[in-house]
Amino acid sequence: MNTFDFKNPTHIFFGKDSIQEIAGQIPEDAKILLLYGGGNIKKNGIYQQVTTALKGRDVIEFGGIPANPEYAVLLQALGLIKAQKIDYLLAVGGGSVIDGTKFLSAAALYEGAEPWDILKKNIRTLKGLPFGTVLTLPATGSEMNSGAVITRKETQEKLAMGGPGLFPQFSILDPQVIQSIPERQLANGITDAFSHVLEQYMTYPIGAALQDRFAESIMQTLIEVAPKVLKDPTDYVAASNFMWSCTMALNGLIQKGVPTDWAVHAIGHELTAMYGIDHARTLAIIAPSHYRFNFDDKKEKLAQYATRVWNITEGSLEEKAQKAIDKTEDFFHSLNIATRLSEYTSNYEGTAEKIAQNFTERGWVALGEHKTLTPDKVEKIVRMSY
Amino acid sequence: MNTFDFKNPTHIFFGKDSIQEIAGQIPEDAKILLLYGGGNIKKNGIYQQVTTALKGRDVIEFGGIPANPEYAVLLQALGLIKAQKIDYLLAVGGGSVIDGTKFLSAAALYEGAEPWDILKKNIRTLKGLPFGTVLTLPATGSEMNSGAVITRKETQEKLAMGGPGLFPQFSILDPQVIQSIPERQLANGITDAFSHVLEQYMTYPIGAALQDRFAESIMQTLIEVAPKVLKDPTDYVAASNFMWSCTMALNGLIQKGVPTDWAVHAIGHELTAMYGIDHARTLAIIAPSHYRFNFDDKKEKLAQYATRVWNITEGSLEEKAQKAIDKTEDFFHSLNIATRLSEYTSNYEGTAEKIAQNFTERGWVALGEHKTLTPDKVEKIVRMSY
Repeated sequence: MNTFDFKNPTHIFFGKDSIQEIAGQIPEDAKILLLYGGGNIKKNGIYQQVTTALKGRDVIEFGGIPANPEYAVLLQALGLIKAQKIDYLLAVGGGSVIDGTKFLSAAALYEGAEPWDILKKNIRTLKGLPFGTVLTLPATGSEMNSGAVITRKETQEKLAMGGPGLFPQFSILDPQVIQSIPERQLANGITDAFSHVLEQYMTYPIGAALQDRFAESIMQTLIEVAPKVLKDPTDYVAASNFMWSCTMALNGLIQKGVPTDWAVHAIGHELTAMYGIDHARTLAIIAPSHYRFNFDDKKEKLAQYATRVWNITEGSLEEKAQKAIDKTEDFFHSLNIATRLSEYTSNYEGTAEKIAQNFTERGWVALGEHKTLTPDKVEKIVRMSY
Repeated sequence: MNTFDFKNPTHIFFGKDSIQEIAGQIPEDAKILLLYGGGNIKKNGIYQQVTTALKGRDVIEFGGIPANPEYAVLLQALGLIKAQKIDYLLAVGGGSVIDGTKFLSAAALYEGAEPWDILKKNIRTLKGLPFGTVLTLPATGSEMNSGAVITRKETQEKLAMGGPGLFPQFSILDPQVIQSIPERQLANGITDAFSHVLEQYMTYPIGAALQDRFAESIMQTLIEVAPKVLKDPTDYVAASNFMWSCTMALNGLIQKGVPTDWAVHAIGHELTAMYGIDHARTLAIIAPSHYRFNFDDKKEKLAQYATRVWNITEGSLEEKAQKAIDKTEDFFHSLNIATRLSEYTSNYEGTAEKIAQNFTERGWVALGEHKTLTPDKVEKIVRMSY
């Protein structure tokens, strides 16, 4: 097991009708900016619950944060924060709204001239404007971590940021929100969370027995609840387990003391930037090819995953490992998630070269847990995913 | 799954040579009280590492905190804290030293006349004197939670306290400390951590799939590493997994959203108070009888535990459940932990009646996850454990 440090101070309120807890978590005298996305919260009752809880408080709203939170839109919100002297942010939405809010939390206190530098120059945020979240779409885990991914359309960039100052002060997780989420987005959420676990698990054995088992626990739970959640989003028990699994998949715990990969995300982000493919689906496109291409590096963990998560007990280590990749692809298919780039765009020729070129230009010498995945290898993986 | 809230702000530094991290975690100008137990830390090099890390700082020492931290001793330390205007506590030890330090953290800022009231009147501590810990004995999980248990010899009481103000600001977990721990204490640590998981798991099914799997993960890991740790305490991988399992067993995570029991601890504490039996061993004495006595209430979870943790796949639900209790007892025996009260004292007659009487006098109407375990039932369980 590797040396690590771990601290996660986010206060989670989990369960039915927990939205009312926000009243006690935001200082009475705060000037609050309520941030949300496309306005679904006004249809599904969540907006009503939030505004009821904040009745009598000083609240300004900013809606319209798009999926893959867009820098240009966030700059408008940043202007509002400064003009109105906002001192507390409340994100009501999924990963995009929460990630956008994290950028704003950092940018509001950033002293440089160009907020994009926070992403471009990878500046860690030690102190941000305080914020809380009301999660409306389980998927990214952003509600209990300190990272964010921001997109800039004009340059086709999608970059990550973070720092210990960017943990939400509190996050509200009410599994009842799942009832109003379209099936497509539920499938994305399951795929996203499952992929997060894979990125932190599918590397090589390092003797971190408990972290491995926790990761396997999350994957087993997601596999178990996925059909129930998709069939009946009002199934509160399934919704609860889905929601908590998504949070635990990326709150830092299972990555501590182990090597992590994240190449699938790095490559997947390019597909979203180029074709607008849903984030989760890009992961399902890249992961199987990535594991097949890097089979020798990953076969021990693939075989462990085969046995413990998919109950594959027959065959050699290599056979189990191969079957585990097939099972993973089957799982994505069972969620109606296509795993080939050509199923999303007919315009895929040249994608592999373009992504390799992007990585080279950005100076990303090598990805993966061994830092051996050079742009030429990335090109091959993407081509295997066509 | 039940509604819950969860927050754990303790900063963990885990791994080889992590003791040096304390220098960066305690404010430069703090007046520090270094607290420890019987002085083993002066023999195993830990005291040396701590004082080297704190070189040049304003540090006073208080040693001699006994196992089952004794109120009278802690009052001496409290006097020192007040006389010397101490503003930071550093616990270097196992659960007893850390629990004692939590009491001091609370008592230092307590405004009532009688510090024992914090325990007697169950006063929750919202703000305590800040403190950190260097863990020298994995077992209790006290290094990453906000609870403590304090003993008062003169009244034969052993009571719990806690509150959100009592999380350590940081805890240092260096698995190398295990090398110098006597086998008896290692066995106690494994038993203690395993029992903590059982208290939060062995109740009834409530559809908390992820919490169940996390609990099972910790038990599987403890079972796997126990023989390795006992055979060779210098096995760093085994030591790491043992240490992290103990912390995760009682840092709040696996108890969220599920019913918990804690009757085994409540009864066990009485045995320690009456006979001075090691805390962990009292749990091993009581748990099997407790599960046999409350078999109908617990058989579903016992059977799930049988299958997932002990790989018992044959037989009816009841048969699996029974075998799981036997397996648990066998596990304690494999650690050289006796599971009968009569193996610890020949003076056991009347123990059951005395404990039932204590509970009645304290107004403890009923224990357990269903709050149905009245003193007369407790009496039967204790008698079954003779």
